[in-house]
Amino acid sequence: MNKIMYLNPVGFSDYDQLFADMAADYKDNDSEVHISSLTQSVGNFSHLEYRTYEAFATRDILLATRKASQLGFDALVIGCFYDTALEDAREISGDMIVVAPCIASLEIAASLSNRFGIIVGRDKWINQMHNTVKHYGYSEQLTGFYSVGLGVNDFQADHSRTEKLLIEAGRKAVEEDKAEALILGCTLEIGFHKKLEDVLGVPVIDPSIASLKRAEYAATLKNKCGFKPSRKYSCEAPSESELTAFNLFNQEQVFGNTITVAAN
Amino acid sequence: MNKIMYLNPVGFSDYDQLFADMAADYKDNDSEVHISSLTQSVGNFSHLEYRTYEAFATRDILLATRKASQLGFDALVIGCFYDTALEDAREISGDMIVVAPCIASLEIAASLSNRFGIIVGRDKWINQMHNTVKHYGYSEQLTGFYSVGLGVNDFQADHSRTEKLLIEAGRKAVEEDKAEALILGCTLEIGFHKKLEDVLGVPVIDPSIASLKRAEYAATLKNKCGFKPSRKYSCEAPSESELTAFNLFNQEQVFGNTITVAAN
Amino acid sequence: MNKIMYLNPVGFSDYDQLFADMAADYKDNDSEVHISSLTQSVGNFSHLEYRTYEAFATRDILLATRKASQLGFDALVIGCFYDTALEDAREISGDMIVVAPCIASLEIAASLSNRFGIIVGRDKWINQMHNTVKHYGYSEQLTGFYSVGLGVNDFQADHSRTEKLLIEAGRKAVEEDKAEALILGCTLEIGFHKKLEDVLGVPVIDPSIASLKRAEYAATLKNKCGFKPSRKYSCEAPSESELTAFNLFNQEQVFGNTITVAAN
Amino acid sequence: MNKIMYLNPVGFSDYDQLFADMAADYKDNDSEVHISSLTQSVGNFSHLEYRTYEAFATRDILLATRKASQLGFDALVIGCFYDTALEDAREISGDMIVVAPCIASLEIAASLSNRFGIIVGRDKWINQMHNTVKHYGYSEQLTGFYSVGLGVNDFQADHSRTEKLLIEAGRKAVEEDKAEALILGCTLEIGFHKKLEDVLGVPVIDPSIASLKRAEYAATLKNKCGFKPSRKYSCEAPSESELTAFNLFNQEQVFGNTITVAAN
Amino acid sequence: MNKIMYLNPVGFSDYDQLFADMAADYKDNDSEVHISSLTQSVGNFSHLEYRTYEAFATRDILLATRKASQLGFDALVIGCFYDTALEDAREISGDMIVVAPCIASLEIAASLSNRFGIIVGRDKWINQMHNTVKHYGYSEQLTGFYSVGLGVNDFQADHSRTEKLLIEAGRKAVEEDKAEALILGCTLEIGFHKKLEDVLGVPVIDPSIASLKRAEYAATLKNKCGFKPSRKYSCEAPSESELTAFNLFNQEQVFGNTITVAAN
Amino acid sequence: MNKIMYLNPVGFSDYDQLFADMAADYKDNDSEVHISSLTQSVGNFSHLEYRTYEAFATRDILLATRKASQLGFDALVIGCFYDTALEDAREISGDMIVVAPCIASLEIAASLSNRFGIIVGRDKWINQMHNTVKHYGYSEQLTGFYSVGLGVNDFQADHSRTEKLLIEAGRKAVEEDKAEALILGCTLEIGFHKKLEDVLGVPVIDPSIASLKRAEYAATLKNKCGFKPSRKYSCEAPSESELTAFNLFNQEQVFGNTITVAAN
Repeated sequence: MNKIMYLNPVGFSDYDQLFADMAADYKDNDSEVHISSLTQSVGNFSHLEYRTYEAFATRDILLATRKASQLGFDALVIGCFYDTALEDAREISGDMIVVAPCIASLEIAASLSNRFGIIVGRDKWINQMHNTVKHYGYSEQLTGFYSVGLGVNDFQADHSRTEKLLIEAGRKAVEEDKAEALILGCTLEIGFHKKLEDVLGVPVIDPSIASLKRAEYAATLKNKCGFKPSRKYSCEAPSESELTAFNLFNQEQVFGNTITVAAN
Repeated sequence: MNKIMYLNPVGFSDYDQLFADMAADYKDNDSEVHISSLTQSVGNFSHLEYRTYEAFATRDILLATRKASQLGFDALVIGCFYDTALEDAREISGDMIVVAPCIASLEIAASLSNRFGIIVGRDKWINQMHNTVKHYGYSEQLTGFYSVGLGVNDFQADHSRTEKLLIEAGRKAVEEDKAEALILGCTLEIGFHKKLEDVLGVPVIDPSIASLKRAEYAATLKNKCGFKPSRKYSCEAPSESELTAFNLFNQEQVFGNTITVAAN
Repeated sequence: MNKIMYLNPVGFSDYDQLFADMAADYKDNDSEVHISSLTQSVGNFSHLEYRTYEAFATRDILLATRKASQLGFDALVIGCFYDTALEDAREISGDMIVVAPCIASLEIAASLSNRFGIIVGRDKWINQMHNTVKHYGYSEQLTGFYSVGLGVNDFQADHSRTEKLLIEAGRKAVEEDKAEALILGCTLEIGFHKKLEDVLGVPVIDPSIASLKRAEYAATLKNKCGFKPSRKYSCEAPSESELTAFNLFNQEQVFGNTITVAAN
Repeated sequence: MNKIMYLNPVGFSDYDQLFADMAADYKDNDSEVHISSLTQSVGNFSHLEYRTYEAFATRDILLATRKASQLGFDALVIGCFYDTALEDAREISGDMIVVAPCIASLEIAASLSNRFGIIVGRDKWINQMHNTVKHYGYSEQLTGFYSVGLGVNDFQADHSRTEKLLIEAGRKAVEEDKAEALILGCTLEIGFHKKLEDVLGVPVIDPSIASLKRAEYAATLKNKCGFKPSRKYSCEAPSESELTAFNLFNQEQVFGNTITVAAN
Repeated sequence: MNKIMYLNPVGFSDYDQLFADMAADYKDNDSEVHISSLTQSVGNFSHLEYRTYEAFATRDILLATRKASQLGFDALVIGCFYDTALEDAREISGDMIVVAPCIASLEIAASLSNRFGIIVGRDKWINQMHNTVKHYGYSEQLTGFYSVGLGVNDFQADHSRTEKLLIEAGRKAVEEDKAEALILGCTLEIGFHKKLEDVLGVPVIDPSIASLKRAEYAATLKNKCGFKPSRKYSCEAPSESELTAFNLFNQEQVFGNTITVAAN
Repeated sequence: MNKIMYLNPVGFSDYDQLFADMAADYKDNDSEVHISSLTQSVGNFSHLEYRTYEAFATRDILLATRKASQLGFDALVIGCFYDTALEDAREISGDMIVVAPCIASLEIAASLSNRFGIIVGRDKWINQMHNTVKHYGYSEQLTGFYSVGLGVNDFQADHSRTEKLLIEAGRKAVEEDKAEALILGCTLEIGFHKKLEDVLGVPVIDPSIASLKRAEYAATLKNKCGFKPSRKYSCEAPSESELTAFNLFNQEQVFGNTITVAAN
C-alpha cells in the first residue's frame, strides 16, 4: 500500500473535500490518501497568490513535511501550482518523496505533446511560474501563460463563468499560439479539464490530479524499486543534533483539517 | 489492468529473458508486460551503439509501435537509452503512450536529487546522449557522462568486471564532480544499480526499470485520468488514407521473440 | 572536378528534373551533379512531412550515402529541409561530406543578415524544424516560422497561388517581425526565391540551391584543402567487420531514378 | 540622508557588532545604518546553511521588511549570500528598495572583470547559489564555486586558518580556472578580502560591504532620482485590506538586537 | 570627492549643456562631473546610430579613456546606450572604472521590477542592443524593444511629439507585453522619464542619469572600498612599453568641448 | 571570376607574403585574390591581441571595406581570428560579402565533427573569443580553448617550437576533452595544420584558409545565385547623403602593401 499526503498549504480548509473527492475518483486502489490543511498558526490566508503569503506558509509546510515523513507517508504533494517550498521540503523529507503540481503537470504534458500552454488566474502569477518552469527545464516547450483574470478563490465561485473563461484562454493558446496541450495553472481550476478537452481537442492536464498521480508513482518507485531521495551535497539535511539544538520542530499540532480516503 | 510492451529495438533476443525477469520483479500487480524483440528483417545487429544501426531499426520500431497500439497496449517502452525513434513512434502511436529509458530516468533522478551523472559504455555515445538530455531540458542538472569503455554487449559478459568499472565511474561522478545521484546510461547495465547504491551512497537509477515504471504510470494516467497523446500540430499523425495509399504498414510479421509476464 | 550527389530522399521521382534544372543553372562549372531518387523498397511515399515517413526512409538514405561514398562522390546533399538523417548519414559517409538544406541555408542567411524567418508549408513541420535550428545554434537569429498551409506536394501544383502565399508569409515576416532575410523551408518551394526578393526587398534563400552550393564548397574544401570528416568519438563509424557480420549493406539496388548534370 | 537597514536574518546576534564595524568603516557619510537581528520567535538557529532554516526565517524577514519600510528606511539589506527571501521581501517593501549580497557582489564583479569565482563554505551551498546566479543572469561569467569546508559559524573562529583556506581556494580559482576576480560567498567571510587581494592580485568582493554600498546606491537613486519599486503585475503587493483580513502583520516585536551607526 | 567624466562619444557638442544640467540636478554633492565631447578628428558625425560611426569613434573613445584615467578621474561614463567600446575602454582604463548607460539601466531596472521594456528610436538599433542585453545576462527579463521611429537627433527637436511617441510606446510595453518598468534606450530621450512615470505608473529609467549615478557608485566603491578593475587574463592591458613602441597615444588634444559641474 | 580581398587588418605587412603563398596554394582557379595590409595611419601595431589595438584599427578596416566594395571586390576577409569589426564592416560593405576566420572555421568544423577545440596563443584572448563563439551559436559544440603561451608575433619565429606547442595543446583537447576536430585560433598559426592532422588524427582547420575559401564561397553565391547582404533593419547602412555630410570616407590612401594572386 502507498500512503500519500495531499497537503493543502494554507489553513483555509473549505476546499479540502473537493480534493478528497478528486482523490477518491482518481487514486490507485492500493493508495491511502490524506487530504490535510495546515493549522492557521500564522494568519488565516486562504490562498498563496502573493510571495508574502508563501513566506508565511513555508515554516508550516516544513513542519507538515517532517511530520508526514515521521508518520510513514511515502510521498507528499504540496498542493499549490507555485510548487511552494518544494525544494525546502525535499531537504527535510527523509525517505519520503515530495512532489508538486507544476513539475508533475509538466512531465505529463511533455510526454503527450511537444508544446503546451498554461492557463493561470492572474497576471500576477506569471513571472514567478515562468521562472519555475525555466528552472525545471521545460520553458522551451511553453507556448505561454494565459490569464483569465480570476483569483484562486474565484474559480469555484461561478462554474459556468469559470468554464467560459478557461475555454476562451485555452482557445487562444491552441489556435493562436499553436499549443498542443494545456495545463491548468492552479489547483483550484479543478473540475474543468474534461470539458476543456472536449471543446478544444487537446489534452488538458489538471494539476491536482497530476500531482496526486505523481505522488503515487513516486511512492511505488520508492516501495518497489527502492528509489529514495539523495542526501548528498545540496540534498544534505540538517543533522538531527542541530535540529534539536535549534529547537525548530517542537510544535505538536501541525495539521489542521484532515480527510482520509482509504485504500480500496 | 495496464497492458505494457517493453520493446527490445533490435532483432537480437538473447537478453529478452533478462528484461522479462526485471519486469517480473518490478512491475505493478495489475500490469501485463510483453517483452518483444523485433524481427531481423534488415540485418542482425545486436545493439544500437551507432546511428547507422538506429537508422536501420527505425522502420521496424514504427511497425512495432503501430501494431502494439492496434493490439490494445496502453504504453510502450523503446528499450534503448538513446531513446531511439521516440518522437517518431509517438507520432504513430494512436492513443498508446510511448516512453523511453533516458527521459524516464531523468524525471526520476531530478525528483530525488539536484545534480546527477550518467554512466555510459563508450565515449562514442556521449555527444548523442548529451544532445538528447539538452533537448529534454535536463542538461543543467547534469554533472557529466562517465564512460567505462564497454560496448553494449560487454556489460553482461563478466559481471564482476562490469561492477568494478561501474563503481569506479560512479565514484568519479560522486566524489570529483559532486553528483548526488546516478543514472545507468544503457539498459544492459541492468543488475548493478543496487550494488552501486550500497557502495556509493546515492540513488542509482536503472533505466530499464525506470522506463517500465514510467510506462505503467503513463498507462494509469491514460486509463484512469484520460490523459492521451495530443494529435495537434507537430503531434499530428499521417492520415489513414495516406498511409494506405503509401502502403507502409503492410508487413504481417512485426515482432520477433516475445515473452509475456502476466498480471498477478 | 567535384562530384556531387543531390539525393532526393524518397522514391517519388517526379521532381527530379526540377532539381536537375536547378543544378544545371546554379552549379559550378567543374561540378558533376547526380540527382538521384531512392528506390521504393519500403513504400511509395512522395514526401517526408511526417516523422513516420522519415523513419521509413532512413535506412535507404544510409544505403545511398554509403554507396555514394564508395562511388567516389565528394559530397552528398540530403534533399529535404528536415535535414533528415543528416547525423546518421555523416557517420557512414567515409571521406565524403554530407550536407543538407536547413543548415546550408542558415549559414548563408546568417552571413547576409542578423535575423531571418523561415517560410514553411504546414504548422506540422514547425516544432521539428525549430528544434533542428536550435540544435544547429541559430535559433537566436530566428524571427519565426511562417506557414502557408500547403503540403510538400502542393507547392508546384499552382505556381501563382504558391507565389501569392509565399509573398504573404514573407511580408508578415519582414514587416511585422522585422525579418531581414528569408529562408524557404522546403526544397519544393523551388522557383520562387527571386520573385520574393524582388517583391520584399530582402535576400531569400532557396534551400536546394543553398545545399547544392554548400556541397560544392565542402567538396572543394575536401579536394583542395584536405578537410574531411572526423572519425573520432561520436564521429566514429561502425567497423567494417561488424558491418559485414551484421549484413547491413548487402542491397545491390540503392538508387532509383538518376539524372546526371555533367561538368561544363 | 539615506537610512539603511542591514538585516541579520537570524536571531543570533553575536556577529552584529562585526557588521556594525564594517558599516562604520565603509558607509557613506550621510548614511544612517541600523544593524538589526531578528527575534528568535521560531527557534534559535544561528545560520541559514539549510533551506530548512531559511523556510523558518522567511516570515520574520517579511515582518522586518514591512516594519523597516513603515519606519522610513530607504533601503534594506538581507544579510545572507543566499539572498534569502529577496523576491518575497521586495513584494512587501513599499517604496523601500531591498538588496542582498549575492546580486550586489555580482554587479560589482562584472564591472571589474569578465570572469569571476565564488568562494563558499561548504559543498552543500553550491547548487542553490548556482541557481541563484543563473536566475540573475550572471552564470556565463562564473568560473565556478570553490568550497573551503567551513560552516558559516566557523569562519570567524580561527582567523589564520580561515585566511589560509580562503587563499588556497582563491588560488585554485585564479590559477587553474582563470578567474579574474573573486567573490566571497558568505557574509561571514568578512575581514579577509583585502588580504586575498594582496596575495592573489585580483579584486576580491566582500558581500556584506557590497550589499551595504548597493543599499546606499539604491537609497540615493530613490531619494535623488525617484527610482522606486514597480508595483505592476508580478511586483504587485497584497492589498492592505487583504493583509488586514488575513491578520498577518500583527506582531509588535520584529527586531531583536539593533546597533545604530549614525550619519557622520 | 569623486571625480567623474561623462563622455559624449561624438564630436557634436550641442547637447553637452543638456547633460551638464542633468548632472547638476542629479549628481551627489561630493562629485565633480566633467561633461566632455570628443574632438572631431575623424569626421563630424553627430550620433552613433550606425556601427560605421561607432567604428570611427572607438579610437577617440580610447584616447579619452586613457587621458581621463591619467587625469585622475575615478569613473568614466561612455554616454551612448549602445555602450559603445565599453569593453575596449575598460581594458585601457587603469584604475578608473568605466560604465555605460545600458548596463547601468539594466541593473537598476532589475532591482525595481522583474520584467522591463526598452524604448528605442529606430528599428535599426534593436538587434545590436538586444545582443548587448543578452551578453550582459538580462535578456530573460526583457519584454521587448519598442521603437518610436525617431533618430537620435530628433528626440529633442519637438518635445511634445517626442513625449507623445514615448508614452505610446511605453503604453504598448506595459499594457500589451506586461512590462513592469521601462528603460529609455537613448541618452537623448533625456527629459521625459518623469512624465512617463506619471502617466504609465511604472518606474522609468533614464539612461544618462542611471549611468552618471552608476559612475558615482563605482567611484565610491573604488575610493572607499578599494574595488578596482582586474588586470588578469582577459582584463590584461597592453604593456606600457608596447604602447610606446606602437606610438598609439601620442595625440595631445583628446577632448573637445568640456563643461565642469563642480562639487557642492 | 571571383574577386577576393584578404585584408590584413594591421599596418604591419611582414606576413603578407605568407598569406599570399597560402592563397596561391588554396584558392580556386577563377579567383583573383588581393592580400592587402592597412596603412599605418594611427600607429604601427603589428597585432590585435588587445581590444585597444582593435579599437584603433576599426576605422581603417571600414575605410578598406568600403573601398574594396567600390573597387568591385565580391568578398572580403578580415584576417584576424577575433573577427575584428566584422559586424561593422558588413554594414558598410554594399553588395560585397564580408567574412572572417572564426565564423568560417566554425562552420567547417561543425560540418566535419560534433565537438571541437580551439588552440589559441594566450589566455588573454579566450574570453573575447568565447563570447564571439557564443554569439555565433557554436558554443555548445566547443570542448574549450587551449592556450600555448605564444603571442601573435611568436608563432612564425621558431617553427619547431610552435609545432611542438600546438601538438601538445591539440593532444590535450583530443585526449582529455574528447575534441573530434581542432581549429587554430590565430591566422598566424598558419603552416601547421597538416602536421597536426597527421599527428593527432582529427581534422585541423586553419583559419586563414577557411576564411579565404568562405570568401570564395560567398562570392560564388553572390555572382551565381544573387545572394547579397540584406540592407533591412539592423543591416541598414548609413545613407550616402549622411556619409557625405559627416565627411567620413574622404581618405585617399586606404591600403598599404598589396600582393595580387591572379586568377589561373
